[in-house]
Amino acid sequence: MAKVTPLSGFPEWLPAERRIEQHVMDTFRDVAELHGFSNIETRAVEPLDQLLRKGETSKEVYLISRLQADDEDRDKEGQKLGLHFDLTVPLARYVLEHQNDLAFPFRRYQIQKVWRGERPQDGRFREFYQADIDIIGQDTLPPHMDADVAIVMAEVLGKLPIPGFTISVNNRKLSQGVFEALGLTDIEGVLRQLDKLAKVGEAEVRTLLIEHAGASEEQADGCLAFARIKATHEDLAEKVNALGVSSEAIPHALEELSFVIRTVNASVPGACIADLSIARGLDYYTGTVFETFVEGHEDLGSICSGGRYDTLATDNRHSYPGVGLSIGLSRLVSRLVTRSLATSTRAVPTVALVAVADEEHREASVDVARVLRSRGISAEVAPSAAKFGKQIKYADRRGIPFVFFPSEDGRGEVKDIRSGEQTPADAHTWQPPQDDMTARVVATTSTK
Amino acid sequence: MAKVTPLSGFPEWLPAERRIEQHVMDTFRDVAELHGFSNIETRAVEPLDQLLRKGETSKEVYLISRLQADDEDRDKEGQKLGLHFDLTVPLARYVLEHQNDLAFPFRRYQIQKVWRGERPQDGRFREFYQADIDIIGQDTLPPHMDADVAIVMAEVLGKLPIPGFTISVNNRKLSQGVFEALGLTDIEGVLRQLDKLAKVGEAEVRTLLIEHAGASEEQADGCLAFARIKATHEDLAEKVNALGVSSEAIPHALEELSFVIRTVNASVPGACIADLSIARGLDYYTGTVFETFVEGHEDLGSICSGGRYDTLATDNRHSYPGVGLSIGLSRLVSRLVTRSLATSTRAVPTVALVAVADEEHREASVDVARVLRSRGISAEVAPSAAKFGKQIKYADRRGIPFVFFPSEDGRGEVKDIRSGEQTPADAHTWQPPQDDMTARVVATTSTK
Repeated sequence: MAKVTPLSGFPEWLPAERRIEQHVMDTFRDVAELHGFSNIETRAVEPLDQLLRKGETSKEVYLISRLQADDEDRDKEGQKLGLHFDLTVPLARYVLEHQNDLAFPFRRYQIQKVWRGERPQDGRFREFYQADIDIIGQDTLPPHMDADVAIVMAEVLGKLPIPGFTISVNNRKLSQGVFEALGLTDIEGVLRQLDKLAKVGEAEVRTLLIEHAGASEEQADGCLAFARIKATHEDLAEKVNALGVSSEAIPHALEELSFVIRTVNASVPGACIADLSIARGLDYYTGTVFETFVEGHEDLGSICSGGRYDTLATDNRHSYPGVGLSIGLSRLVSRLVTRSLATSTRAVPTVALVAVADEEHREASVDVARVLRSRGISAEVAPSAAKFGKQIKYADRRGIPFVFFPSEDGRGEVKDIRSGEQTPADAHTWQPPQDDMTARVVATTSTK
Repeated sequence: MAKVTPLSGFPEWLPAERRIEQHVMDTFRDVAELHGFSNIETRAVEPLDQLLRKGETSKEVYLISRLQADDEDRDKEGQKLGLHFDLTVPLARYVLEHQNDLAFPFRRYQIQKVWRGERPQDGRFREFYQADIDIIGQDTLPPHMDADVAIVMAEVLGKLPIPGFTISVNNRKLSQGVFEALGLTDIEGVLRQLDKLAKVGEAEVRTLLIEHAGASEEQADGCLAFARIKATHEDLAEKVNALGVSSEAIPHALEELSFVIRTVNASVPGACIADLSIARGLDYYTGTVFETFVEGHEDLGSICSGGRYDTLATDNRHSYPGVGLSIGLSRLVSRLVTRSLATSTRAVPTVALVAVADEEHREASVDVARVLRSRGISAEVAPSAAKFGKQIKYADRRGIPFVFFPSEDGRGEVKDIRSGEQTPADAHTWQPPQDDMTARVVATTSTK
């Protein structure tokens, strides 16, 4: 058999680690469904012209080709096919394709793997899960939907085994309004430089603004003062107005931004702040923009980002505005695993191993396991009729908390192998403690 | 925006159809975990030499390449990378790679998409879900594990909204033993011809056995008589012995096969029969082999196949025998959807739409929705404060069964929009009927 080696950028989990990933996905699903979001999945493959609508990502696409074919696989229009690199591009295509079968506003969540054709030596994930929620309107989408999606994500994050988190919010219209009021014209250029703040610091960004975004010293200082603002909905307007700039656009944008923060915090207290340094994505998003940081893990970057796009998709009949957020799920799970922020109480779902006295009595053990399962208790039968000590060790190695020793008619004794306590039990009535019923995922820190 | 067209072979579901797929997956997961199987996922990508270990499938592999790179992507050994076409090849590699971190016998289930580089014009699925369970031993794997995996699958299938099903079982050792006792030597050849029985019929297969598998007329008749046998564990030995052939291998193989059938049927009555016409996979499997057919949908072919392989994987220290079964999940879901065998009671998870009297009172509606959700009741707030008639229509179009009209402090009235009945309700205490709590997937036929 060929040598087996891990592939850099293609993460894989052991069963107990995968249990943590499952827990994150289950939590996401539960909360999204409580809020009335339906699940969809899109095919992994899109025509290349769809994937390259945003030119900048063209470097990161994986093309697929059939091993035995002469050329790359293509669709009917002759387009090459590639693996999707996010879930937004496929959503836009899905909405257009199925618009006659969907009810708008369309509330959907989606948890799927995406692929990026990164160079192997860059050490980045080349395959990873994203978990997205979006609300898509037909032609219109009310502003309160921006708060709706952030509330869902705040509730998800609040249930995960992570330390505290903050959803930082900005608004493209506010940034643009203030920069224009400062007399700047290259708004994209200003945003591009401000995006480097966390990496290179204020002094360097000040120079870059002057050298590459056409800013005067005074304008650069104005941009930095703006980007320094962190606020609640109560003091946001005051802090922005203190900059001494004004325009028609600013008050409306301020109202839109503080509405989102106030509304989200009313549902999930303390989840959101205004952070006017957020510049990433503002070339794509047209209003609200979100980034999310985990306390003590700011080096991870934003683990949950998104915003509003006035035209996610459009055809000759309708435009489809949307607002959504996406969790970089694999990156988050990877941090939970590698920093031991969370653990699964065991690697297997099994509550009880049913021991086998000898192979002639295996059937009695199978019967006990069946009765336990019919009552929702995960059970497996010992693989071999080894000495009981060996069977107990087998359970211990797998993290199974109980061993059931059958005697007759579903009765027998149950040993809690953690305490060593052994008591009479009947498979029809024995009830393990609620905490042992499933492999639970628990936070290992006390920071939350 | 580019023209949007479906891609042949890459199925996609609408939300209500995806709900059916989710239900099938959830059922599979629940049953597998009740039996103590842990979940894993493997990366979508394997080096080509791993994928081509079974030469015959080489035609169906999708290679991946980075759009901006000169060549296909390769691993450290210079191997091209391809998308996995099943979950068995990745499992073998995963077991070898992580053998020191796994407890054996390793019981795992896995539900993932696989890809096959079929020619587009063939109309086959090129992307689809498989759902596998396997038990992998280190060096040894007791025979009763064959029955264990079949019991899990029988329980899964028994809970799905399909008509009756039968797991047909054969054993490579029995087929081989009988063919050898008949004096045949080209066992692979005989199996290859017998595999065509369902397609071309007995007369044609008889000719093929003689022309291509070195059989005399008498031997061909013997093979056909053997393949005609369908039996329970009670009459299996009798029927095989009536063929008048004997060898040392036959009694042992008979015992192995009838043990599996007896054991599975003891847990799930009527699930299994011996069907000695099963020839597919017998070149790969080394003992038990399974195929599963759905009543009235035999044209689908086997929806759940598998068997025992004595060496799933091997390195210079250990060999890893395994036994497992795989459901062609997308194919099954596609049948459920296209033949309307199952439907979801609604497309959305939402139980109640909370109406909005006017935008000034939206907050009161948001509060009601929050209270409902805190009690596990999926709720969403009306997107706009349109006339109540329009809000009710909105709920109706989405299949949301209840509309909650708030008055004050979480109180108000609830309308069941199916019956039109409207009653006073308090968000803190109102309880919808259990049947309305989730979007349930129900069988639409009475065949089960």
